[in-house]
Amino acid sequence: MERIRTVEIGAHVGERVRVAGHLHALRKMGGVSFLVVRDGWGMAQAVADGEGALAPLAEAGAGVESVVVVEGVVVAAPQAPGGVELRAPVVEALVPVTEAPPLALNKRELKAGLTTILDEAVVANRHPERRALLRLGAGAMAGFRATLAARGFTEIQTPKIVAAATESGANVFALDYFGRPAYLAQSPQFYKQIMVGVFERVFEVGPVFRAEPHDTTRHINEYVSLDAEMGFITDHFTVMGMLRETLAGMLAALAERHTAELALLAVALPAVPAEIPSIHFAEAQELIWRLHGVDERAEPDLSPRGERWLGEWARREHGSDFLFVTGYPMRKRPFYTHPDPARPEYSNSFDLLLRGTELVTGGQRLHRYTDYLAALARAGLPAKPFVHYLEAFRYGMPPHGGFAIGLERLLMQLTGVPNIKLATTFPRDIHRLAP
Amino acid sequence: MERIRTVEIGAHVGERVRVAGHLHALRKMGGVSFLVVRDGWGMAQAVADGEGALAPLAEAGAGVESVVVVEGVVVAAPQAPGGVELRAPVVEALVPVTEAPPLALNKRELKAGLTTILDEAVVANRHPERRALLRLGAGAMAGFRATLAARGFTEIQTPKIVAAATESGANVFALDYFGRPAYLAQSPQFYKQIMVGVFERVFEVGPVFRAEPHDTTRHINEYVSLDAEMGFITDHFTVMGMLRETLAGMLAALAERHTAELALLAVALPAVPAEIPSIHFAEAQELIWRLHGVDERAEPDLSPRGERWLGEWARREHGSDFLFVTGYPMRKRPFYTHPDPARPEYSNSFDLLLRGTELVTGGQRLHRYTDYLAALARAGLPAKPFVHYLEAFRYGMPPHGGFAIGLERLLMQLTGVPNIKLATTFPRDIHRLAP
Repeated sequence: MERIRTVEIGAHVGERVRVAGHLHALRKMGGVSFLVVRDGWGMAQAVADGEGALAPLAEAGAGVESVVVVEGVVVAAPQAPGGVELRAPVVEALVPVTEAPPLALNKRELKAGLTTILDEAVVANRHPERRALLRLGAGAMAGFRATLAARGFTEIQTPKIVAAATESGANVFALDYFGRPAYLAQSPQFYKQIMVGVFERVFEVGPVFRAEPHDTTRHINEYVSLDAEMGFITDHFTVMGMLRETLAGMLAALAERHTAELALLAVALPAVPAEIPSIHFAEAQELIWRLHGVDERAEPDLSPRGERWLGEWARREHGSDFLFVTGYPMRKRPFYTHPDPARPEYSNSFDLLLRGTELVTGGQRLHRYTDYLAALARAGLPAKPFVHYLEAFRYGMPPHGGFAIGLERLLMQLTGVPNIKLATTFPRDIHRLAP
Repeated sequence: MERIRTVEIGAHVGERVRVAGHLHALRKMGGVSFLVVRDGWGMAQAVADGEGALAPLAEAGAGVESVVVVEGVVVAAPQAPGGVELRAPVVEALVPVTEAPPLALNKRELKAGLTTILDEAVVANRHPERRALLRLGAGAMAGFRATLAARGFTEIQTPKIVAAATESGANVFALDYFGRPAYLAQSPQFYKQIMVGVFERVFEVGPVFRAEPHDTTRHINEYVSLDAEMGFITDHFTVMGMLRETLAGMLAALAERHTAELALLAVALPAVPAEIPSIHFAEAQELIWRLHGVDERAEPDLSPRGERWLGEWARREHGSDFLFVTGYPMRKRPFYTHPDPARPEYSNSFDLLLRGTELVTGGQRLHRYTDYLAALARAGLPAKPFVHYLEAFRYGMPPHGGFAIGLERLLMQLTGVPNIKLATTFPRDIHRLAP
């Protein structure tokens, strides 16, 4: 008999079917045994009268997480999960597991401390809630790519081993490249800009590496960056429009294809307004001063508290979970940032806040060769390490810009997990290199 | 006026349109000027009587690769590329380029040596042929993902910084991870297997790193691996069936969505037979002996020459560009390889040859915890560095297997470029770290 997936059994009421997966749970109540099989997509319950059907498990000493095959007749059972269950089951222990797993995977919630969950991630990721969260990550990546591909973007894969640090000498991992020093890419920034000269619109989904010695709830040292870059923009507002469409596409993809995961995690996806409200950095500082009496107006950046207040304001005034803050001061932005032509101390850049926390950074970049030479000189950087990057501008680049979304931060903010490491399959932090 | 893409102008005959891109070519013939604009998707020709329309270019000293905006009336012109051209053009030099680029981008072929092409990749990748090849890579990735997603596979992104070398201690790049030794992942092998315990069917598209000190036409030190792994297989033939569907899906995606690129590069895609012929390793050696009088029967692997002969045989006998060779000797395969239960010196593994050259490697893996402990002991490897990997098997894993396709090798074999570096956007080799 052909095996079917657990999520398909509802379409086979009255038929005998075969499912296979991990033995998720097994309990006995008054002479009746309930057995739950978890496969890669969902779960199915089988009900056996007496102990006979379970003899193959008992003989093999097969406990939870054993790999089992179960055949049974699909019967409507309104009280069962999914509204159906398997009756008269025949059970086979394909791969018996005789030791209890280090975490109880069949409780509604994973009851364990952060360290245990991360140490035992190999098994912990099997828990339905963790798995649902990680599958939302796959859905977000798919939504990102589909939205951009439909708008003429081409996918690129750029090198992760680079000869020079991307944006600054700080926070890079160094490695030995056949006897020469090399670094892990902190972002695909330079390469995605270069590739605008080739494809005009590009995106990349890939790992980036930050050797930041921070141990916070919002930092990991390797993460997945969803990068986009596009040519022939007017200014950063063109990029913000594309980012809005991208987020709307990603959230729509999650809502359409991941209803089960969203329900399991009780996630209410934020609505992306037709136009996301936007406030200039200087106005944002004024607003914080006026509404909260805290004067950040001399600061080159917003405080986390200020961002939270702005998020509350956006919800109150605009009914929006999202808020663009534009025009961050040039001195806080990287050298390739395009200034605001009307107020050159401010930049044509933006952050996107989701519920008062930064989610995306982006902006317009410089595109003229001479502007790059001047910007490097101003930043006190030598031109030599940037010679290949500069070649793109030397031989013509259109006005362009882009953005980068951190996949794990997005998942953290959507699902509300308290630590970004819980939004990562196998996190890397200052203390953790395994699993 | 809204700018349109060059590939869209054929739908606007009789209308005035605006296109923008790089000035790909400019030539004058008997008082008529021909100007070709290249945007991210294609090219459009504009024709001007006299020199007046080109004055803005001349005034700015704007040569080829300048970023230009051209407005004109779309006119059917059977002799023009694409069958249409722009008349009465108005030209603007948005970003003038005054230096000739290091490579002539507007010749049909990129006439330069390998080193020049790689040194100048930032600009060389703009050449229509290079760009078409790289865009086929994007199409191959999209086809890979779409085919597997439609079959219940979930995308994963696994860590690239790892605590221990993946399969052996050789050929790994070492790095300093906050004062501790760490390595770049040679493959996602261990993680994709672990994730079979979570999602049952997984795929990953991402960089892998091999510190192989080889300088050949078929080696690069960082490449894009298209990895898949699936549970509940019967044996390696289940995996081979999925690989066949995946390749068929990828090639169908290229044929459907990349006709222009395939035509430009004169690529004839191989047909994927409904069943790819397959030959056992031992029979393959016998065949080589019988047909060619070369005795490789004591060897643990096939020679490149032997593979070529097998490719010719598959074409001749089975009319197939593809050939599976199965059952490679266990001693040449990694420790996690599943042996053939009937002939334990051979493995349940395979290589897929395309036109006589290896394209994909895959197979069934061990899935029982005790088998792993025995295999590590046999290989003389300590269990400790593998403790997290082993945890997956300790707590139950179904019979499983998978495969890995090297994106650049696939592109090389499909397009016939003589060096894998030419199938890579920015290659990394033993001598090359930039651009």
